[in-house]
Amino acid sequence: MRPTGRTAVVGAARPRATRTVVRMAAVSEATTGVKRNPNLAKLGAGYLFPEIGRRRREHQEKNPDAKIISLGIGDTTEPIPKVITDALQGAAAGMNTKEGYSGYGAEQGMGGLRDKLASRFYDGLGIGSDEVFVSDGSKCDISRMLMLFGSDTSIAVQDPAYPAYVDSSVIMGATGVLNEETSQYNNITYMNCLKENGFFPDLSKANKTDLIFFCNPNNPTGACATREQLQSLVDFAKANGSIIVYDAAYAIYIEDGSPKSIYEIEGADECCIETCSFSKYAGFTGVRLGWTVVPNKLKFSDGTPVNKDWNRIMTTCFNGASNIVQAGGLACVTDAGFDAMMGLVTYYKENCKLIRECFVEMGFEVYGGVNAPYVWVGFEGRPSWDVFAEILQKCDLVTTPGSGFGPSGEGFVRVSAFGNRSDVEEAIRRLKKVYG
Amino acid sequence: MRPTGRTAVVGAARPRATRTVVRMAAVSEATTGVKRNPNLAKLGAGYLFPEIGRRRREHQEKNPDAKIISLGIGDTTEPIPKVITDALQGAAAGMNTKEGYSGYGAEQGMGGLRDKLASRFYDGLGIGSDEVFVSDGSKCDISRMLMLFGSDTSIAVQDPAYPAYVDSSVIMGATGVLNEETSQYNNITYMNCLKENGFFPDLSKANKTDLIFFCNPNNPTGACATREQLQSLVDFAKANGSIIVYDAAYAIYIEDGSPKSIYEIEGADECCIETCSFSKYAGFTGVRLGWTVVPNKLKFSDGTPVNKDWNRIMTTCFNGASNIVQAGGLACVTDAGFDAMMGLVTYYKENCKLIRECFVEMGFEVYGGVNAPYVWVGFEGRPSWDVFAEILQKCDLVTTPGSGFGPSGEGFVRVSAFGNRSDVEEAIRRLKKVYG
Repeated sequence: MRPTGRTAVVGAARPRATRTVVRMAAVSEATTGVKRNPNLAKLGAGYLFPEIGRRRREHQEKNPDAKIISLGIGDTTEPIPKVITDALQGAAAGMNTKEGYSGYGAEQGMGGLRDKLASRFYDGLGIGSDEVFVSDGSKCDISRMLMLFGSDTSIAVQDPAYPAYVDSSVIMGATGVLNEETSQYNNITYMNCLKENGFFPDLSKANKTDLIFFCNPNNPTGACATREQLQSLVDFAKANGSIIVYDAAYAIYIEDGSPKSIYEIEGADECCIETCSFSKYAGFTGVRLGWTVVPNKLKFSDGTPVNKDWNRIMTTCFNGASNIVQAGGLACVTDAGFDAMMGLVTYYKENCKLIRECFVEMGFEVYGGVNAPYVWVGFEGRPSWDVFAEILQKCDLVTTPGSGFGPSGEGFVRVSAFGNRSDVEEAIRRLKKVYG
Repeated sequence: MRPTGRTAVVGAARPRATRTVVRMAAVSEATTGVKRNPNLAKLGAGYLFPEIGRRRREHQEKNPDAKIISLGIGDTTEPIPKVITDALQGAAAGMNTKEGYSGYGAEQGMGGLRDKLASRFYDGLGIGSDEVFVSDGSKCDISRMLMLFGSDTSIAVQDPAYPAYVDSSVIMGATGVLNEETSQYNNITYMNCLKENGFFPDLSKANKTDLIFFCNPNNPTGACATREQLQSLVDFAKANGSIIVYDAAYAIYIEDGSPKSIYEIEGADECCIETCSFSKYAGFTGVRLGWTVVPNKLKFSDGTPVNKDWNRIMTTCFNGASNIVQAGGLACVTDAGFDAMMGLVTYYKENCKLIRECFVEMGFEVYGGVNAPYVWVGFEGRPSWDVFAEILQKCDLVTTPGSGFGPSGEGFVRVSAFGNRSDVEEAIRRLKKVYG
C-alpha cells in the first residue's frame, strides 16, 4: 500500500500507480474542484470561545506554574446532584439489559420528557408537549433554526450578543460580508444594548426584520428585561410580522419576578420560539440536553405552521438527544431533581454576588449579576481584548472580552459566576491585588 | 393573564388588552410576515422512517392484538455489552464527583477518543487524530456537511440511497423541485444501482458533480463495493474534482476482505470525507455517537483545507457529543470493548444469514446480507409500498419499502437484520406461512 505517516508536501509530485495523466489534467494536484462556501469565507475571526481557549493555553505554556482560574467561557464546574446522576447512571446500566435497552427514539425527544418540560416550565402558559422539542442543546438548535428559515431571512440581534446567532446566520448566507471597520456584518440589524438604554434596545430605531434573536436574561450583559419591556418587544414583533427567537438559557437565574418565559407575555405564542437548556440549570454543559418550544399558533406568512417545518428539520437533520441523557433530564424535572438544580443555581448566584461586590467595591462600573450568572464590568476607554489580556497576564484569570460579543461590548469584560467557590474567592483576591 | 388550554380557532378574534389596532394592521391575525423557506416546501413526503412508524402505529391500532415484529427501520435491539455500559455508568456516576465532573469539552471531541478512533479504524492509513471529529452521529454530520458546502453545490447520490443525503440537500437549497412523476428532485444526479450493474453505479454515465454521497456497504441494497470499484470511484472523483462523502456506517459488517475505509484507496485522502458511527457497531442508535474524518489534504478549489471550515462548522453549530457518551465510545475502542462490539456484530450477521436463507429458499431474488446487515428482496413488478403493506397486514412484520430509498428501489423491500433472534425466527415462520 502507500506509505503512511509521511509529511505531505503540498503540490509535490509523488508516484501514483493507478491514475492516468489524462484524467487528472482537469484538476490541480492538491485541490478538488469544489468551490469553498463563500459564507464560510465571510466569517471574520474564529468562534469566540475556542479563541479564548487558545489564548489561555498560550498563557499556560508561557507560564507553566500559573494556576489559571477561568471565569471566562461560562462553563459549569460543580458536580451534578446525585438525584440526577443516579438517573443517568441507571439509564446507562439499563442499556446492558433487555428491559432497559432502547435504540432509536423519537427525534423530537421522549414523550414523557416533553410532557414534563411543558408542565414544569410552561404550566398555565398554554404550551403543550407537542410544541416542546428536546435536543442536544440550544447552540445546536440555533443553527438548525437557520436551516429552518433559510438564507433569504433578515436578522436582528442584540449587540452585544452570544456569538452563535450571528455566526450561524453568516454560515447560512443570511447576512452580507463583514465590515472590518465596524466589526459588523452587512444586512444584520444590530440593536445596541448599552448602559444608556439599560441594555434594552431602542425599538423605535430598530429595523423590521424576519427574525429577532433575543437572549434574556442577557448573555453577556446580565441584564434582565421587565414584563413591560418584553411586552413592547412582542408588540414590536407582531406589528412587523417578525419572529422572535427567545433564548432563555439563564431564565432560572431570575429572582426579581420578571417573566421566566416569553410565553408569559400576551401574544408571544403567535410570534416567538423559545429555546432553553439544562446546561446552566443542572450543570449539563458537557452532558448536552436542551429544548426548543415552537408553538402551534406560530405561522409563516402563507399560513404553514412553523412547528410543522421544525418537526421536519428535527427528524431529518437530527436523530434525538441521547437516551441516557434524556433520562437525566427526566430526573431534573421531578420535584427532587428540580430542588437539587435550584441548589446549584443558588450556589452560582452566591458566586455572582461575591464577584459583583468585588468590582463594585473597587469602583468599577458594574452591571448584571442579579438575575443572571454574568457580571458585566466596564473599563471605559480601554479595548476589551487589552483588558482581557491584562487580567490574564496579571491575575492568571480568564474572563471574556466584551467586544467578542459585538462592538457594543467594547470597553467591557464579562465575568462568569460559574466556578468553584474557592476559585472565585481566589480570583477576587487576585483582582483586588491588581485593581483594588 | 390569558386563558390557557383553550382550543384556538385560526383567524378568530379574541379580546387583546395590550395591543392597538393600528400596530396590528400590517399583519393578518394568525400569521407572521416571515416567508416559509421554499426549500422546506420542496420536500415531498415526510422523512421515510417516521412515515413507517406512523403506518406501524396505524396497523397496531386496527389490530390491537397483533404482535408486530420490526425488521424495518434498522434499529438495534440487543443490549450494549457490559464493558461499554460500565464505562457509560462510570462516567455518569463521576459527574456527581469533583474529580469526575466535566463541563464543556472540545466541540471536536475528547482528544483521547479522537486518537483512539484514528488508531483503531485508520491504522496505517495516514489519518491523524486532528482529522477525526467526534459527533452525535452521522445523520447529524450529514446535514452539517450541507451547511459546510452550502446551497451552490451539485450533488450525486446512489439510487436507492439512505434518504438523509437527498433530504438534507433539499433543505439546504442545493437541489431543484421534486418531479412528482419520477419522484426525483431536479438538479440531483441519481446514480442507478440496479441488479443489472451489481448495485454499483455506471460511472461512465454519471454527471460531474461537486459532491458524491456514497454509502458502502450500501444501505439499503446491502451491496459492498470491491477494492477495484472503490478505486474507480476515487479516480472518477479526482478526474472531476469532486468530493466523495463516504458513509461507512456498516463497514464493520464487511467479511470478504473488501476495504472497510475509503482511505485504503490510493488518492482518497485528497477527495474523500468519511463518516461513521457507533450506532450499528455497538448498539448506540439511541445513545448517539459517531465521527467524521476530514483529511488535511482535502482542499477546496481555492486551496483552503476543508478541515478548517469543517472545524468552524463543528465549533459554531455543534457543542460536542455528550461527555458521558464519549466515555462509552472510549470503551468501544479498547481491545475488550472492540471484541464485545464484534460479538454484537456477529449476532446480527447470524440473523442476516437466517433472513437471507429464508427468502432464497422461498425462491425470491435476494441481494445483500453478506457484508451488510440488510437483505434486499425483489418482488418484481410490484410496488414496494404495496409489498410493505401486504407483509405488515399478513405477517404483522415491518420491513422498509425499497422505493422509499429512491425510484431504483421500486419492486424491492429492505429487510433489516437488527432484531432479537427469537423475533427473527418468528418473522421467518410468518413469512414462510404466507410466501413459502
